[in-house]
Amino acid sequence: MTYCLGIKTHEGLVMASDSRTNAGYDQVNVCRKLYTLVTPGERAFVILTSGSLSITQSVTTLLQDEYRQGRGLAMASNMYEAARAVGACVRTVSDLDRDALAKDDYSFNIHLLLGGEVRGGEPELYLIYPQGNPICATQDSPYLQIGEVKYGRPILDRGIDARSTSLDAASKYALLSMDATMRSNVTVGPPVELLQYRRGSLQFDHYRRFSASDPELDLIHGRWEQALRRVVEDLPNIRFGGEPAGSPA
Amino acid sequence: MTYCLGIKTHEGLVMASDSRTNAGYDQVNVCRKLYTLVTPGERAFVILTSGSLSITQSVTTLLQDEYRQGRGLAMASNMYEAARAVGACVRTVSDLDRDALAKDDYSFNIHLLLGGEVRGGEPELYLIYPQGNPICATQDSPYLQIGEVKYGRPILDRGIDARSTSLDAASKYALLSMDATMRSNVTVGPPVELLQYRRGSLQFDHYRRFSASDPELDLIHGRWEQALRRVVEDLPNIRFGGEPAGSPA
Repeated sequence: MTYCLGIKTHEGLVMASDSRTNAGYDQVNVCRKLYTLVTPGERAFVILTSGSLSITQSVTTLLQDEYRQGRGLAMASNMYEAARAVGACVRTVSDLDRDALAKDDYSFNIHLLLGGEVRGGEPELYLIYPQGNPICATQDSPYLQIGEVKYGRPILDRGIDARSTSLDAASKYALLSMDATMRSNVTVGPPVELLQYRRGSLQFDHYRRFSASDPELDLIHGRWEQALRRVVEDLPNIRFGGEPAGSPA
Repeated sequence: MTYCLGIKTHEGLVMASDSRTNAGYDQVNVCRKLYTLVTPGERAFVILTSGSLSITQSVTTLLQDEYRQGRGLAMASNMYEAARAVGACVRTVSDLDRDALAKDDYSFNIHLLLGGEVRGGEPELYLIYPQGNPICATQDSPYLQIGEVKYGRPILDRGIDARSTSLDAASKYALLSMDATMRSNVTVGPPVELLQYRRGSLQFDHYRRFSASDPELDLIHGRWEQALRRVVEDLPNIRFGGEPAGSPA
């Protein structure tokens, strides 16, 4: 399993991914799922992947080959074209592998997040489906997730406001969302990669990789849990009535 | 969908359920999923249900019939026997309905939570599977959930400690867990039923039903969200390094 998320705020983007891969319970490995493609001052893209590693690696290999040749993401004149360029690579690999996978009942099931900015535009965040079509984060839906998405969602719903949440706060929400997911699903695990992108910067200069034993991750985890317990204690106690009303049957 | 949970602490039990049922997007109704069976001073049981309403209603009808006749839960001499009595009713309905459902590819898929106490014993919390077999909450796994379980889990993992969490705090955690789930899944909805059971009381006298517009639910929801945002702002900002290390490929 995997958990990756992207958050879009008025100040820019935050992207986070775990690094655990597994093919069964007894084949668990570390694998990075965050890829960047950058031409400083002109364009900066970050891609997060979930799904079969064999398929996502093929897609990112194609994207990187195209980029080196000045095609694909290197030619996109805005983020929508960039999302379509990623979708085109997904479809190329689908044409290569989908039928062979289907023979053994494997599905072609990968999802990607694309964040970034092209000079002259705005930072944007897209999710690309296994069929290659993209959807875009909006002010009302300012975050997108792939993989094991449920455990980490409530903290985002409560905290993120695209109009007011700062990049520094969004980075903390992303880390807490990841932490909640890692605690609940053992197939999501460290290292955690976190990238903060400030609008207009057209480069990636705020990156952090947290290992399992990172003292800062421990500190944030511990303080969060303590503060949360204190907040719950401080909420007013629930006022109960007497017996339940008669049986619902 | 449904979300129900039970929490077992050193002081007793907290049980909570939503009340939304749906058969498709255009057939959404309110239905209580919390049932109580009590002989004050002798035995007190609360049952929460998830899964096909037709099946869960049959099971609870059988349990109530048996109880009135002094059988089943009325005869159980401890909570393990009580869990087995619930499982026996699940199996009776399975024998009645499973084959007919299978003909149209419906699965016999219900889950129940049973909380309560029998005089001379301790409060216990069980989950009963569609096959009728039970599992029990323990000090290390002090809560059990059925239905849409993921959204509401992180708050429980961070807050509940069977040895130290008070019943009043556990009730707030249950409500916050329910609130997180209702926000993320529209097929989980109010009214919310909440029952607090103090060990040794052998009756249910702490019950509360929250409608969608309950001002206390609004207050707790609002204060929680405000406090949570403040806590995140107060956490130390993440210290980032520079560029990401080279591409992982």
